[in-house]
Amino acid sequence: MDPSQVKVPPMKNLTVDNITENVIRINSLCEDERMKYVLERLVSHLHDFARETRLSSAEWMTGLKFLTEVGQICTDVRQEYILLSDVLGLSILVDSIDHPKPAGSTEGTVLGPFHTHEAEEITQGGLMSSDPKGEPLLVVCTIKDTAGNPVEGVKIDIWETDSTGHYDVQHADRAGPDGRCIMRSDKEGVFWFNAITPVPYPIPHDGPVGKLLKKLHRHPYRPSHMHFMFEKTGYDHLITALYLRNDPFETSDAVFGVKDSLVVDLGKAGPKYAAKYNVSEDQALLTYDFVLVSDTETSDLRAKNSKDALDKLGRKVKIVNGLPIPDLD
Amino acid sequence: MDPSQVKVPPMKNLTVDNITENVIRINSLCEDERMKYVLERLVSHLHDFARETRLSSAEWMTGLKFLTEVGQICTDVRQEYILLSDVLGLSILVDSIDHPKPAGSTEGTVLGPFHTHEAEEITQGGLMSSDPKGEPLLVVCTIKDTAGNPVEGVKIDIWETDSTGHYDVQHADRAGPDGRCIMRSDKEGVFWFNAITPVPYPIPHDGPVGKLLKKLHRHPYRPSHMHFMFEKTGYDHLITALYLRNDPFETSDAVFGVKDSLVVDLGKAGPKYAAKYNVSEDQALLTYDFVLVSDTETSDLRAKNSKDALDKLGRKVKIVNGLPIPDLD
Repeated sequence: MDPSQVKVPPMKNLTVDNITENVIRINSLCEDERMKYVLERLVSHLHDFARETRLSSAEWMTGLKFLTEVGQICTDVRQEYILLSDVLGLSILVDSIDHPKPAGSTEGTVLGPFHTHEAEEITQGGLMSSDPKGEPLLVVCTIKDTAGNPVEGVKIDIWETDSTGHYDVQHADRAGPDGRCIMRSDKEGVFWFNAITPVPYPIPHDGPVGKLLKKLHRHPYRPSHMHFMFEKTGYDHLITALYLRNDPFETSDAVFGVKDSLVVDLGKAGPKYAAKYNVSEDQALLTYDFVLVSDTETSDLRAKNSKDALDKLGRKVKIVNGLPIPDLD
Repeated sequence: MDPSQVKVPPMKNLTVDNITENVIRINSLCEDERMKYVLERLVSHLHDFARETRLSSAEWMTGLKFLTEVGQICTDVRQEYILLSDVLGLSILVDSIDHPKPAGSTEGTVLGPFHTHEAEEITQGGLMSSDPKGEPLLVVCTIKDTAGNPVEGVKIDIWETDSTGHYDVQHADRAGPDGRCIMRSDKEGVFWFNAITPVPYPIPHDGPVGKLLKKLHRHPYRPSHMHFMFEKTGYDHLITALYLRNDPFETSDAVFGVKDSLVVDLGKAGPKYAAKYNVSEDQALLTYDFVLVSDTETSDLRAKNSKDALDKLGRKVKIVNGLPIPDLD
């Protein structure tokens, strides 16, 4: 490159006290105002973290090695960085910020690292788990909007582990997707399918994140749950899960996902459901009524929350598309 | 595991406002007080970063993918996480915190990602670069303590690029270490060797860190420099480098390493050096007098700086071995 083209503000003799403003200054050459703001906050917090901990060179190197290992264990079917974000509480935090829920709507929770894009679509009543050792479970749900009207044609992604607590992608010898499916709600907003009763399981803990949990004396278990993801134009993307009440890990989920509104009691099909859905009367039954929020309602609430939060922090920003950027006026 | 053994404080219904205290609470099961403190500050800053930026799910995923890519490009001879730390100004900050320098001693600077542990030891006057295209450079240095006494028997690690601006490890077909060596200072504190005149070069920018710099409109260049690392029992480990004055990138180093006290003018050997060191009179010459600080002096200064910084922040901590930990008294 031609050094005469360098447009960087001159900087030399950087110290503990002036490094941050200089890194922010050089990064502000970025034309993307949102990226500029995110980077400014990132650099400020990263440097304050080092200054407040008086981070040593040895600790710095330990940290970089850890981050390297987290990256290196990732594969197409293992995302250790999502796990790291999950166990540090960042995932649930970001979901709460980006997908605020007005009262009465279904709350969101962590995506986790096991969603894939290869699930097959099944029709109403289909079977989404082929595990013969799982306890059969009939699942009957409705989807409504916040006004109580059924929502038709929602694409629903559903995934759960097998009876040993492993997702399909965790089996090296798997033949194809299992324990996962895609469905569409009918004109009554109903979708129903056959699955197996969820079991508690540990998140993968043979890697760097597992080692970290061990050092912190934290267990890697998640309470029994089934994941759901809802997608329809005009509605806010909902990533959530249903948790079984009285699971031994109900109040100590390794990834902080449990919310009371998402905890369900399993019932039995009984004569009515048995006849209607062609299962035995003592078949386990899960029912739930999901409530989706419109895109508009969500983006209004997101923008309002952003404004309130940033006002409270006293930061000079403007909110564009619900997200703060530097306010240069 | 036996769920009855779970010692985690009960937690459910975590929100934007209470997630941080809960993650800190669960992490405080850790027995290592220093790790507990570092994690507490890490989680606080990570969460505040998300709250202040109102980080979106899409940005979160972009970030995790970036961190994954940074990890995946790392090899035995490429450390992209050090590069990332370098371009974010974290490396120079941590060096400044951990290796404070009293006035009159040689300042430290960034280690960079190209130090290896395979350099061969050479004797006084040895040649550490075999690049025939490099401009020959005679380097004559002394090492003293802060009282002005020569320091004998210091292990010195020296490394530089070839004339194309690449370190040996960046050449896939390299035969062995080149452009790097280990030396020992003699009883006058002197070490001297033959090298090549450093040239400016870009840090590796074909990976995720390079892409980041490009988005920020930052160039990846470092001004011409030669790395030095000094090690002797009783003295603080010194990682530094010497920079050539008037390099086109002197005030825009991509990794913020340049300090005026480390900028040197190259001279010519002239009759005196030519005769003494067996080089031609017009051979380029670099001389420098390094000053090492004792371990005791450094750890006292480090502890004092830590105390001053934490007092200023008003944090309730105690300083143990120069590093803050929670003060529970």
